[in-house]
Amino acid sequence: MLYVLYFSLVENGQLPDPAEWAVLDVVNYFKAVGFEEQANAFQDQEIDGKSLLLMTRNDVLTGLSLKLGPALKIYEYHVKPLQTQHLKNNTS
Amino acid sequence: MLYVLYFSLVENGQLPDPAEWAVLDVVNYFKAVGFEEQANAFQDQEIDGKSLLLMTRNDVLTGLSLKLGPALKIYEYHVKPLQTQHLKNNTS
Amino acid sequence: MLYVLYFSLVENGQLPDPAEWAVLDVVNYFKAVGFEEQANAFQDQEIDGKSLLLMTRNDVLTGLSLKLGPALKIYEYHVKPLQTQHLKNNTS
Amino acid sequence: MLYVLYFSLVENGQLPDPAEWAVLDVVNYFKAVGFEEQANAFQDQEIDGKSLLLMTRNDVLTGLSLKLGPALKIYEYHVKPLQTQHLKNNTS
Amino acid sequence: MLYVLYFSLVENGQLPDPAEWAVLDVVNYFKAVGFEEQANAFQDQEIDGKSLLLMTRNDVLTGLSLKLGPALKIYEYHVKPLQTQHLKNNTS
Repeated sequence: MLYVLYFSLVENGQLPDPAEWAVLDVVNYFKAVGFEEQANAFQDQEIDGKSLLLMTRNDVLTGLSLKLGPALKIYEYHVKPLQTQHLKNNTS
Repeated sequence: MLYVLYFSLVENGQLPDPAEWAVLDVVNYFKAVGFEEQANAFQDQEIDGKSLLLMTRNDVLTGLSLKLGPALKIYEYHVKPLQTQHLKNNTS
Repeated sequence: MLYVLYFSLVENGQLPDPAEWAVLDVVNYFKAVGFEEQANAFQDQEIDGKSLLLMTRNDVLTGLSLKLGPALKIYEYHVKPLQTQHLKNNTS
Repeated sequence: MLYVLYFSLVENGQLPDPAEWAVLDVVNYFKAVGFEEQANAFQDQEIDGKSLLLMTRNDVLTGLSLKLGPALKIYEYHVKPLQTQHLKNNTS
Repeated sequence: MLYVLYFSLVENGQLPDPAEWAVLDVVNYFKAVGFEEQANAFQDQEIDGKSLLLMTRNDVLTGLSLKLGPALKIYEYHVKPLQTQHLKNNTS
């Protein structure tokens, strides 16, 4: 089911630009990639895709009330790569 | 009505310098640009225009008790541009 | 009356070096320059002139439990200039 | 017994790469090196080896609710060297 | 009496290297130099000499639950000079 949620975000075989994600898309993304338990924190803090692209490492670690272990991975393996990819797609 | 509040700040087709804003002008500005729910935090923290021009990203994110999502946008799309504009108008 | 308190600090038409201020002098200084409500925080945190000269922007904003608006002004318009003046007077 | 726990991590006379440690391996490592009392904080925050390799000094000092004294040593004498060693082993 | 406590640390007319101090030596040092009230915070946080040598300004100001005024002086007039002296004695 997570699989389904995750790929409901995909258009033309590619993740749509996070800048277009609503808060619920952000939540579903983190559920789909294995952070079921942590995903709702993004809803609590009303983080949509535009906000996600503005988050620093410190924001993820201290602004979401997450346990430190998962927070470190969420930033390093997801938030940072999503931001890098977005930047790359928008500066050509 | 928000429209009216917002433009009550405008003089000669231009926003007056934030340095002249009272706390209530700051509150009305954020209500007018779509942060109805967050605007009162500026009143709680007694932020007038002069203080607004002194705020860093970190001050906005941690000093106003706002949810992280809206706080990120308030800084990036409003506080920062207002500061940049003020600086530009005052160094010619 | 504030006027009197303030100028009780003045010797020979000049503010004495903050390095010589007791905690109460610090409190009276901030009362005199318009921060009546915030002045007592300096007493609560036992800040004398020597400590005042060591404070960073972050210390003023987060270590005194002040509202953000007045704290921003207290640092920018008072603590910073007092430190700059002290430095200038002591490196000639 | 701590001795046993510690060396249960050793393969071929060498600590296995922390990137492979589960949360319990992290906990056992810190118990084995003398931080019996502090080790459980790593479990509370769900820190496995991958997360451990991502921790900064500030994360160790403020994100684990440890007393400052032991936290300073845990970072300086263990987390930092483990990260340096991992980096060295993975950039040849 | 503070005088006695303080000089009980002295060997051959010189303070022994803080790297050798136990938690109680740290506490006695701060009592002896006039921070009677603040000294116990070093015991609460289990700070021995090795940890003391690792403390940054921020650690002293935010990790010991001290009032800001005394904390600023403890760092500037004691922790920093002790670290500088230690460094000098150990890099010749």
